[in-house]
Amino acid sequence: MGPINKTDGIPLYIKIRQQLHDEIENKILLPGQKIPSEDELASNYGVSRMTVRQAIADLIDEGLLYRRHGVGTFVSHSHVVRDQSRLTNLFEGAEQEGVNISVQVLIADILPAKIKVSHALNLAEGDLVFHIKTLRSTDGMPITVHDAYVPYKLIPQLLQEDLEATPLWDIFELNGYRVKRAVQRLEAREADEELAGLLSVEEGSPIFYKERTVYLDDGTPIEFTHCYNRGDRYTLTVVLYR
Amino acid sequence: MGPINKTDGIPLYIKIRQQLHDEIENKILLPGQKIPSEDELASNYGVSRMTVRQAIADLIDEGLLYRRHGVGTFVSHSHVVRDQSRLTNLFEGAEQEGVNISVQVLIADILPAKIKVSHALNLAEGDLVFHIKTLRSTDGMPITVHDAYVPYKLIPQLLQEDLEATPLWDIFELNGYRVKRAVQRLEAREADEELAGLLSVEEGSPIFYKERTVYLDDGTPIEFTHCYNRGDRYTLTVVLYR
Repeated sequence: MGPINKTDGIPLYIKIRQQLHDEIENKILLPGQKIPSEDELASNYGVSRMTVRQAIADLIDEGLLYRRHGVGTFVSHSHVVRDQSRLTNLFEGAEQEGVNISVQVLIADILPAKIKVSHALNLAEGDLVFHIKTLRSTDGMPITVHDAYVPYKLIPQLLQEDLEATPLWDIFELNGYRVKRAVQRLEAREADEELAGLLSVEEGSPIFYKERTVYLDDGTPIEFTHCYNRGDRYTLTVVLYR
Repeated sequence: MGPINKTDGIPLYIKIRQQLHDEIENKILLPGQKIPSEDELASNYGVSRMTVRQAIADLIDEGLLYRRHGVGTFVSHSHVVRDQSRLTNLFEGAEQEGVNISVQVLIADILPAKIKVSHALNLAEGDLVFHIKTLRSTDGMPITVHDAYVPYKLIPQLLQEDLEATPLWDIFELNGYRVKRAVQRLEAREADEELAGLLSVEEGSPIFYKERTVYLDDGTPIEFTHCYNRGDRYTLTVVLYR
């Protein structure tokens, strides 16, 4: 970082934008790192504060930087971008993109279904369900808390499987159940205390919430899941046709 | 609200859950209203605090109530639930559900495209685009800030249309452009100061962010839009097939 060439006719804010862009790309500036203030950058580059401001505004616009009110401007985390134009699980998507997913089981239990779970899974309140709560990390950083419920009667031996190594849908298939269709509800929520702790974010941070009911060919619901994804690291893409 | 019958064998927490459920359904308790504390409810109903807590946990689980840390428990706002298994706009979805949408134009302007908009719309940086920013409300409550960019050269007379009465896609069609496909990015974000003001929420509240590029039959991008939806009032549903 230092004074830049002002004599070649390219607007200064574009040069500074390009330089910051390169520093982010080349990991000289790291995700989550606070960049210097506008005054510092202006003085380093030997340009006006307005010029710096315009460059930064563009990089925020592009999603490479983000501003936290009263705190400063930071380098964005790279997002895990999932294409959900068709039904895939996190593992399939990640495999295609060379992202390394790890799964940590937090809860693996059998309990009576409460009202919402029983409705979703077409059970009576109190019928037994598996509750499998996992923390998923990409390249070592937590990204998703996954809270799945599965009817006990469909796969009574479920807890004997290695839930950290085998995706749930693979276990379903091994037991003769083929996932056909999912209905998802997507919402933006806030992290409560527990989620904030598990996902290493501050309480109140944005959470991309997905609620999913998964059905078999014959319409039987086999899984009801709450997914809590870190808002600053998770993007869903969808292609839609009219 | 008052002491309840304890002699008919139905668990007390289910009765209290049902009573609160009915009061929400019948608008005795209104969306956004704070419900009495667990102690107050326990004393009103003549039951233990644990019983009240179980009933409330179920209603939170069902989405009828929500808890704000250190503030209290509140009646949820009804969400505008949009089905986006296929491409529709807010108007089409709302029409089907009998929701009344109003649109207020905040900005309707022509300006040179900045870097991100120019990339999305396949333009050169600095090419002219319309910027049309609107606030959408359902039944009088703000729900979405809609920030759309349209290439100037496609519909030079765009600003002569009544943008509050005519959906953008109808204007496209009137000009011979038929929307075919959209690519959407979905994220959970925080409301900044401006959004918080426009959407009547607190700064930092969850925002369901949609970024959308809309294409015509021949692949020409005609619209690039940022949609900022109130997290506490907006749900997207998607049905996916494997």
